Amino acid sequence: MQSLFIIKIGGNIIDDEVALAAFLSAVASISTDKIIIHGGGKIATRIGDALQITSKYENGRRITDDATLDLVTMVYGGLVNKKIVAGLQALGCNAIGLTGADANLIPANKRPVTTTNYGWAGDIIQTGIGVSFLQTMLTSGLTPVFAPLTHDGQGHMLNTNADTIASALAIALSTIRKVRLVYCFEKKGILRDVNDNQSVIKGMNKATYQNMRDEGLLIDGIIPKIDNALAAVSAGVEGVVIGHAQDLLQNIGQNTEGTLIQ
Amino acid sequence: MQSLFIIKIGGNIIDDEVALAAFLSAVASISTDKIIIHGGGKIATRIGDALQITSKYENGRRITDDATLDLVTMVYGGLVNKKIVAGLQALGCNAIGLTGADANLIPANKRPVTTTNYGWAGDIIQTGIGVSFLQTMLTSGLTPVFAPLTHDGQGHMLNTNADTIASALAIALSTIRKVRLVYCFEKKGILRDVNDNQSVIKGMNKATYQNMRDEGLLIDGIIPKIDNALAAVSAGVEGVVIGHAQDLLQNIGQNTEGTLIQ
Repeated sequence: MQSLFIIKIGGNIIDDEVALAAFLSAVASISTDKIIIHGGGKIATRIGDALQITSKYENGRRITDDATLDLVTMVYGGLVNKKIVAGLQALGCNAIGLTGADANLIPANKRPVTTTNYGWAGDIIQTGIGVSFLQTMLTSGLTPVFAPLTHDGQGHMLNTNADTIASALAIALSTIRKVRLVYCFEKKGILRDVNDNQSVIKGMNKATYQNMRDEGLLIDGIIPKIDNALAAVSAGVEGVVIGHAQDLLQNIGQNTEGTLIQ
Repeated sequence: MQSLFIIKIGGNIIDDEVALAAFLSAVASISTDKIIIHGGGKIATRIGDALQITSKYENGRRITDDATLDLVTMVYGGLVNKKIVAGLQALGCNAIGLTGADANLIPANKRPVTTTNYGWAGDIIQTGIGVSFLQTMLTSGLTPVFAPLTHDGQGHMLNTNADTIASALAIALSTIRKVRLVYCFEKKGILRDVNDNQSVIKGMNKATYQNMRDEGLLIDGIIPKIDNALAAVSAGVEGVVIGHAQDLLQNIGQNTEGTLIQ
């Protein structure tokens, strides 16, 4: 099977012009097929503040009310997405900006209201992902760039976590591609010692993870990311790399940087 | 050659929820391949006001400065575009939202500064239009939905008139499709008497237009639209229809409503 990189970048890169330019340039130089998923960044908060849309939280999770849905649709689906697409085009990378509504690529269900009402939050319908048209785009030489938005098939956009979209796409595409899922974040990888950037754990699998967790060696924040990565590997993804954007992309596929979970 | 409708809607439909729902439902019921191009609507002005971005005009033309470019990229490329896409998806029409930057479908040049500096306004590079990938999308059963935005290939989005995009796409696609270009506006067609909605001129060509113009029968505002339509016909477009959205789309291809320019 042909290789495919699915690369997720977070708000910290989007908010930093220099980091974003370096990221786009690294992406454009990858000759293997690739799909980008971007988060939002602080720009949504800044524009939301100016429009007097204040983010509401319940149990630490952001609630997507009507005004917030319009805000993220504008900012993630419009401003941030097209900035990345135009930037990649300038570097000769034929990017195409998308949300999950476009070509019905990522259908989702509005999250059911339980004790918490998350509002317009979407839970991806994994079996509905548009693998065939994604493959058509890739074989046409295009680089899909996804904003963290899906839709409910009933006329509403839905706010969906970018990490989750990346992993759902990776799993769906692993039926036709050898998929490497790449999570870019602010650290050089999963660290043995959070205060020591040199203490990157090079590799991890289900067994070594369980050992480390039992020994209390992993900080809480990273555990959901690893669980997510291991679930993707169980579902057919060839490997998941977590690390710093620049390191990872300059050496992509060489397993020299970041933490590789397999 | 297979038929294709290229349908442009303006802000008056986008601003009116009932009119928009009727338009989307009419579009979804068209079985022939189609491409939609939408304008902006007052929502950009409303959000711009809230963000204290005031539209500047020179010689009656809006100037796209940095802040206005961000505004239209957000509102046209994000909010309005995805509202239309999600709405069509809910009606079983497999829409895909696009700007000219996506897949480099509509490359443009930033308008040169002469006596007026239009800012980030784009003049389409007609020969650069991505006919092949447009055809791929259409044959995949997709309905492309374009926001009125192009890009300069150097990392900048550009603001481009939706009528002009519609006509440029129609001309480019006329090499591979029998293209009918449909301009939806607030009147039932080109009227002999602006005050009489029943006075629609059914058909028009270069010769009859020249006669009417010579006799002073056409109001100024409509002349650029007709010139534009006749240019499209000269360049290979099979016909251009101008009229009211509901009338046109319910009877699309039957030449019973609106003004047909050939």
